[in-house]
Amino acid sequence: MKDKISIVGAGLVGSLIAVMLKKKGFSVQVFEKREDPRNSLVAQGRSINLALSHRGIQPLKLAGVYDTIAPFLIPMNGRMMHDQSGALTYQSYGKEGQFINSVSRAQLNELLINSAEESGVEVYFNHKCTDIDFEKNNISFENGVSVESDLIIGTDGAFSALRKKLQFTDRFNFSQHYIEHGYKELSIKPINGEFGLEQNYLHIWPRGNFMLIALPNNDKTFTCTLFFPFEGSPSFAQLSSKTEVDSFFDQFFADAKALIPDLSDQFFENPTSSLITTKCEPWNKGRSILLGDAAHAIVPFYGQGMNSGFEDVRLFIEMSEKMNWDWDSILPSYSQQRKKDADAISELALMNFIEMRDHVGDPIFLKRKKLEAKIQEQFPNEWIPLYSMVTFSDIPYSEALRLGKIQKQVMDEVLQSETEEIDYNKIIERFNALKKVG
Amino acid sequence: MKDKISIVGAGLVGSLIAVMLKKKGFSVQVFEKREDPRNSLVAQGRSINLALSHRGIQPLKLAGVYDTIAPFLIPMNGRMMHDQSGALTYQSYGKEGQFINSVSRAQLNELLINSAEESGVEVYFNHKCTDIDFEKNNISFENGVSVESDLIIGTDGAFSALRKKLQFTDRFNFSQHYIEHGYKELSIKPINGEFGLEQNYLHIWPRGNFMLIALPNNDKTFTCTLFFPFEGSPSFAQLSSKTEVDSFFDQFFADAKALIPDLSDQFFENPTSSLITTKCEPWNKGRSILLGDAAHAIVPFYGQGMNSGFEDVRLFIEMSEKMNWDWDSILPSYSQQRKKDADAISELALMNFIEMRDHVGDPIFLKRKKLEAKIQEQFPNEWIPLYSMVTFSDIPYSEALRLGKIQKQVMDEVLQSETEEIDYNKIIERFNALKKVG
Repeated sequence: MKDKISIVGAGLVGSLIAVMLKKKGFSVQVFEKREDPRNSLVAQGRSINLALSHRGIQPLKLAGVYDTIAPFLIPMNGRMMHDQSGALTYQSYGKEGQFINSVSRAQLNELLINSAEESGVEVYFNHKCTDIDFEKNNISFENGVSVESDLIIGTDGAFSALRKKLQFTDRFNFSQHYIEHGYKELSIKPINGEFGLEQNYLHIWPRGNFMLIALPNNDKTFTCTLFFPFEGSPSFAQLSSKTEVDSFFDQFFADAKALIPDLSDQFFENPTSSLITTKCEPWNKGRSILLGDAAHAIVPFYGQGMNSGFEDVRLFIEMSEKMNWDWDSILPSYSQQRKKDADAISELALMNFIEMRDHVGDPIFLKRKKLEAKIQEQFPNEWIPLYSMVTFSDIPYSEALRLGKIQKQVMDEVLQSETEEIDYNKIIERFNALKKVG
Repeated sequence: MKDKISIVGAGLVGSLIAVMLKKKGFSVQVFEKREDPRNSLVAQGRSINLALSHRGIQPLKLAGVYDTIAPFLIPMNGRMMHDQSGALTYQSYGKEGQFINSVSRAQLNELLINSAEESGVEVYFNHKCTDIDFEKNNISFENGVSVESDLIIGTDGAFSALRKKLQFTDRFNFSQHYIEHGYKELSIKPINGEFGLEQNYLHIWPRGNFMLIALPNNDKTFTCTLFFPFEGSPSFAQLSSKTEVDSFFDQFFADAKALIPDLSDQFFENPTSSLITTKCEPWNKGRSILLGDAAHAIVPFYGQGMNSGFEDVRLFIEMSEKMNWDWDSILPSYSQQRKKDADAISELALMNFIEMRDHVGDPIFLKRKKLEAKIQEQFPNEWIPLYSMVTFSDIPYSEALRLGKIQKQVMDEVLQSETEEIDYNKIIERFNALKKVG
């Protein structure tokens, strides 16, 4: 248990696994290319707030850091939809008492780095990884430092340096895909010292091919994000003047615009960012392994980027413990077992963009949601809606995706059938039968 | 027309487009990272011979270099299949007089570099590209040289340095995928001064999940290639001793083994190489563009890697001439128009591996081949078999793929129907109807 573990990347996933491995008795050091975020006001070039849910909370609890983080969370009980006239509709995320949590990425990261240092992890900032020797388990940094380790963990995000090195080794499969949409963040300031929108919701302005969302922050601001095509009509390419921005928001997001007096200034001051999905295989080589975004960067629409990364940590630690910390057996096993779930959440995240921006206001979608609520009422233990499986359970993502597709098929059959009376026993029988086959 | 054009990579595609652009009046220079292949005996780490067919021949003719190359070509009229007992079956590739040509990669490359230099192209070897500035159209080389150009063409192959630079620019989609199989080349020496196998054929030993093929060379040798899984049973991983290699070949390729006395020596001396497919988009940025393998590396099973690269050259030159050499309009148009065809040949090449290794000996496959021959006999201008569309025509690959799928559907319908009598008019009607829909 005296193994020396080097972690590349002190982001959310890297800091969390550092804490956990340190507590298991290893010698752990983390190397981060950026400067210490606790000393700087430099923006991190990533989204401002995130939605923390079950799969993310559980590992935080196991690491013993959840209680430090809990005070900073803002519960979001469901989606609050804003139509073009400003009228509101509400959809709860789950059962009574089930919610997701808005949390600041920067705040959470600082708390986790603090926890790592407090537990005895050495954290080195301004260490940019420039090379990895997969034979010697050696990492080289831009500043001349070079470190040998028993285990190297790459938690350096969607543009991982470790993965980049893997990409140029033989038989490494890799893909990076950008969607047609980019995003831009805008801020709703407090109104008379209070939240400008109802606090405990994730607000959505679904508009077909694009949408605006807003999540609450601790300082009573809301961070809005516009997800919008780069090209076409309408698109970022078409909004080149303040007048164009104002009239676009007047038309589509009038109620939000009323809360952002400096909207067009913000629009041109804030960057337009792109949205990437990356996949690769295998995640391991020699004594190195990728976790989190470095292994599987996904689009943000299921709120599962951080949560899946934290779940990676839990599963990796649990498997390692079970396999007696025998890295040479653990790395290929973990990589092989977890891959299908990473692929599944990647697909789910892309699907959920369509749902959020387009379907949440759709009558057929609402009809299906109503039907599902009734089925669930009758069979709460047998029928768990897809969103709940992903957000409030430990069911592997790949199984959730499989069951979700079966649920959709069963509900489509019911909605297409001519009969007036709905036989819920038949529905659950059909579901259970299809479930077994796959 | 005084534009200065820099080409990165003096392989087959780079040398060919250099000749064509020089003849159009441009100032053309080619930079190659390797040393001059004409002065060295260093192996190029790529397959030894290739199958040149219509899409490759046409651009060679347009460039005025075909006559220099023709004497080195060996026609292959069809597939000669070897079953496990050594019995032979023959399938012609096309109509009477249609054949593909075995050609040495090294020889062809040298002839094309000669042609480039003779036409006034400057070719610089030992120039390894290390950076591209897409704003300034500037290429930097490892030796300190730096070159500005009006147009940069990346023809530097499946592991293109230019594409690698593009990969780390925003919104560049990219994938690299290795199949489960690798390959190993083996040589059949002349027997009593003559070819060891019948000369004018591509020989195939189809064995289900793997296969051996052989192509003739000018020195009366045959180059055999074993396409074989890296892992599993049987696989490269399982053949670790000379005895294992010998008994494997005795079992599956006895007639080939009889022609290679030093088989197990060759097996362990020659490398085992992997097979990659790469896709990316867009191929252009600023005044830079990728062509050939750099844009779309494919597996070799349709014999279309070089041919598709040469067709890239023809289409790029034709489009450029039509658009008056206005690079800023040409590069995005070319990239956008050609992409679907590159994707199609990529898919076709993967499909043809299954056909070659598994189906060519299959009774259902042979039945379909017979049916197709009869349909073609009746409607030679309306029904062109997929292999012929790909190999002997200019039909865009994407259209060939689409029509090939329709043909398969129509033939499946006929083979599954109960009727004894085959109505060929009905078949062609059905084909033409489906053809219109898509």
